[in-house]
Amino acid sequence: MPTFEQYLAWRVALPQPAVELDLGDAGLRDEDLEAAEPRLRDALRAMAMLEAGALANPDEGRMVGHYWLRAPELAPDPAIAAAIRASWEQIEAFAADFHAGAIAAADGQRFRDVLLIGIGGSALGPQLLADALGGRLHVLDNTDPDGINRTLAALPSLAHTLVLVTSKSGSTVETRNGMLEVNAACRRAGLHFPAQAVAITGHGSTLDQLAARDRWLARFPLWDWVGGRTSVLSPVGLLPAALLGLDWRGLLRGAAAMDVATREPDPSQNPATLLAHAWFMLTGGHGRKAMVMLPYADRLVLLSRYLQQLVMESLGKRHDRQGNEVFQGLTVYGNKGSTDQHAYVQQLRDGLPDFFAAFVRVLDPDQGAPPIEVEPGVTSADCLDGFYQGTRAALAEQGRASLTLTLQRLDATTLGAVLALFERSVGLYAELIDINAYHQPGVEAGKLAARAVLELQHRLLAAVDDTPRDVVTLAQRLAAEPFAVWQVARHLVASGRLRGEDLADPALARFACSPSLAV
Amino acid sequence: MPTFEQYLAWRVALPQPAVELDLGDAGLRDEDLEAAEPRLRDALRAMAMLEAGALANPDEGRMVGHYWLRAPELAPDPAIAAAIRASWEQIEAFAADFHAGAIAAADGQRFRDVLLIGIGGSALGPQLLADALGGRLHVLDNTDPDGINRTLAALPSLAHTLVLVTSKSGSTVETRNGMLEVNAACRRAGLHFPAQAVAITGHGSTLDQLAARDRWLARFPLWDWVGGRTSVLSPVGLLPAALLGLDWRGLLRGAAAMDVATREPDPSQNPATLLAHAWFMLTGGHGRKAMVMLPYADRLVLLSRYLQQLVMESLGKRHDRQGNEVFQGLTVYGNKGSTDQHAYVQQLRDGLPDFFAAFVRVLDPDQGAPPIEVEPGVTSADCLDGFYQGTRAALAEQGRASLTLTLQRLDATTLGAVLALFERSVGLYAELIDINAYHQPGVEAGKLAARAVLELQHRLLAAVDDTPRDVVTLAQRLAAEPFAVWQVARHLVASGRLRGEDLADPALARFACSPSLAV
Repeated sequence: MPTFEQYLAWRVALPQPAVELDLGDAGLRDEDLEAAEPRLRDALRAMAMLEAGALANPDEGRMVGHYWLRAPELAPDPAIAAAIRASWEQIEAFAADFHAGAIAAADGQRFRDVLLIGIGGSALGPQLLADALGGRLHVLDNTDPDGINRTLAALPSLAHTLVLVTSKSGSTVETRNGMLEVNAACRRAGLHFPAQAVAITGHGSTLDQLAARDRWLARFPLWDWVGGRTSVLSPVGLLPAALLGLDWRGLLRGAAAMDVATREPDPSQNPATLLAHAWFMLTGGHGRKAMVMLPYADRLVLLSRYLQQLVMESLGKRHDRQGNEVFQGLTVYGNKGSTDQHAYVQQLRDGLPDFFAAFVRVLDPDQGAPPIEVEPGVTSADCLDGFYQGTRAALAEQGRASLTLTLQRLDATTLGAVLALFERSVGLYAELIDINAYHQPGVEAGKLAARAVLELQHRLLAAVDDTPRDVVTLAQRLAAEPFAVWQVARHLVASGRLRGEDLADPALARFACSPSLAV
Repeated sequence: MPTFEQYLAWRVALPQPAVELDLGDAGLRDEDLEAAEPRLRDALRAMAMLEAGALANPDEGRMVGHYWLRAPELAPDPAIAAAIRASWEQIEAFAADFHAGAIAAADGQRFRDVLLIGIGGSALGPQLLADALGGRLHVLDNTDPDGINRTLAALPSLAHTLVLVTSKSGSTVETRNGMLEVNAACRRAGLHFPAQAVAITGHGSTLDQLAARDRWLARFPLWDWVGGRTSVLSPVGLLPAALLGLDWRGLLRGAAAMDVATREPDPSQNPATLLAHAWFMLTGGHGRKAMVMLPYADRLVLLSRYLQQLVMESLGKRHDRQGNEVFQGLTVYGNKGSTDQHAYVQQLRDGLPDFFAAFVRVLDPDQGAPPIEVEPGVTSADCLDGFYQGTRAALAEQGRASLTLTLQRLDATTLGAVLALFERSVGLYAELIDINAYHQPGVEAGKLAARAVLELQHRLLAAVDDTPRDVVTLAQRLAAEPFAVWQVARHLVASGRLRGEDLADPALARFACSPSLAV
């Protein structure tokens, strides 16, 4: 536990919405902050240039404009400001029509559910908003046919479900597949998919063209100056929030308020510079410890998954901006307290000191029913808060650092402020370690390799005939790696497109064409 | 990508249920395995003694018997075997009555939903089973009143919900609070809680006594030789599985089959010794890399959370069995593929090399509807499998190790086998690093500290009067730390039990008794 003085010295709070960053248990020292001040001020200047429209993502030749989304007046181009404001008007009008039933299902009844098809930044933000603020959002965020079937089967009524398809590029494979699967499900149910579909995508993308051609219900814009992992306050997150009846303007207000606080030039009074500085000190500027997210609120259980993307995709980089190999990153995981105390907190307290904890505490638990006593004078909320305080103290006792974000309450404005705080902290920390936080060069390799797998699948299906042949023979014919052939072949056997013999021993297994070609 | 020879050399498969452990990309070497063989054989012998009833958890003076749960004939005491078999009969009979409506709601209608109240091992296993195998399980796994209200509000009908209360000790605070909150909700709804409640708890525990006294619907046993994190195949997991109509005997069969395979004395032919050896080699025997779980199946998204507890609570220890400070552990996190490829896989591929990946691949995706083509000749399942293969290859290309568990299909038997594999691997690895994997001494400190917080709350409420006083003054009166007083006081203000002034500045804030005492 920090002394009251330590706490006061390492605390910075936003009054409205009430959000406090408490670094009293982060083990920070005045002299380190003083030493870091020039670099923190440089980082703040770089962020100011970014906000002014610099090409902060040079590898992709893009501006980084997610801060404009809640303060369009800051955009470097009036056309951008106008586009943001127009998107708000479009969201407001569409959501009003949706709630009033002016936009309705084919049978004239209101839409009752919203199904979002998207992955990564197109899903994690909307999922967090719905879960944290309350709303039923169905999501397809993968290309697992079993998962897709399960989600569709759980829809109360496909006919009364509005479908949002979200992809900036419009060509994300998982999202395209989800769309095609839902389209097929609509056809099977005698429904016309475009009449219940909405696209959220970049202007002129494949998806945009498809939606225009087939006359989908609506198209909402995405812009190349917004990255997927910072798109939650663009139509990606705001439209679903509006459709679920959430306070989407509150999200913008909260984020804008935090943006103002995190432009503060004095690093010691700026929550984002302090958080970035804490990350630097706690991890040696090299991700040597993971950030374990422990929100003491069931409704924030998805926060860690959201931040996993925001932090790890932004900071997990091989090269710095000078081209040096640095293998950077900051690992994020966690679920919620006090639940996780009964899972892995044993290791946090006693085991590997390879982490620091990031607690989130909600002061006003906003109970629906009047609280009952679980012990004389004690409520469930008292226990929850006691567990937060107790776990923090128990970690500190063992020399494990932590930080705490305290929210007066959990609502749209505080959530917007929290997301903005992490966005800015990631940007500032990236400046400290001199990396580009806004690209993701490493994800392309997996996609290319997956494409090669599908090509091998085509070639293998074309190469087999009635004669069973073993992996090595087939690999020779295809000039492919035997292991790659084996991997593809067993998948094709499982889905009925190849016939397999002696599969228990891969060295002996043989494959031939299947009598029943499923596809 | 491994060569076919590497794959064949580092592959071990269970034929029935079909589960393969593929360590071809784990970078293992023959000479290391040879060198480790004596220690692995020692570990297998220790596991044999554990299975024979040794006090493998000496700190708690307990046997470690979760392997008996699926092979009661191995239990060292016929009474234990009889108790296990009796629990199966009780589960079968109760579930049959539940499904037939012989056990029914107060209005004579069938129960339609199951609500589980439990935390840690009492919740994670049942949640995984329900999510992976299909079934609607409502869960209260925290003492967050907002979360409790939300879960209760989402119940189709509280009157037609069977409530399982699971706690081995019967005194887990979160579980007790959940029970009291549900009891109160029943009272408000005019329902008699005991008539729809079932206890799963240790014989003679507080919970057991309460359930007996109030004549709950049923009581199911838990035994002190089963730890919470390995209780999924006891009534903790089997009863909910049976009530959801899942193949709970298949879970036992699959686990038993894996148990046989993982007793194999040749370490190179035993999947659990190989996995434990891989962990040792990949992490330096000191948890230097995290295990990132990437199941390519939506239904396995909770596997990482389950394994987080099993692995981290078992291995995250300060002392080894000789009393040396070792600060051990093995960090586990992850969600699912290919979804996570669009989140943090950027860092895995390009950034910090602080992890190895554990893929889970399901060969037969078991699609409900006939597959559609998302590209000519390509299904959604092909893309999913291609992404697994591609990501594995892309990681390998960058020198990032991985292992893959390949399941022929995802059903109760394969899931039982997978859980048993990890249980045994954890036990063997604990032998390699000489720690007690079956206790959790570090979680007590947080509970004690939380208890102290509640005591301070009582004392603070008793100490305040109409005169507002600042934190330092109150702390002096209470002989407490000012920071602790501040933390408790602001919580009490938020819940209406203290009146606060000037809260924006903790150094000036003053507290007095509240005119409205909420509790």
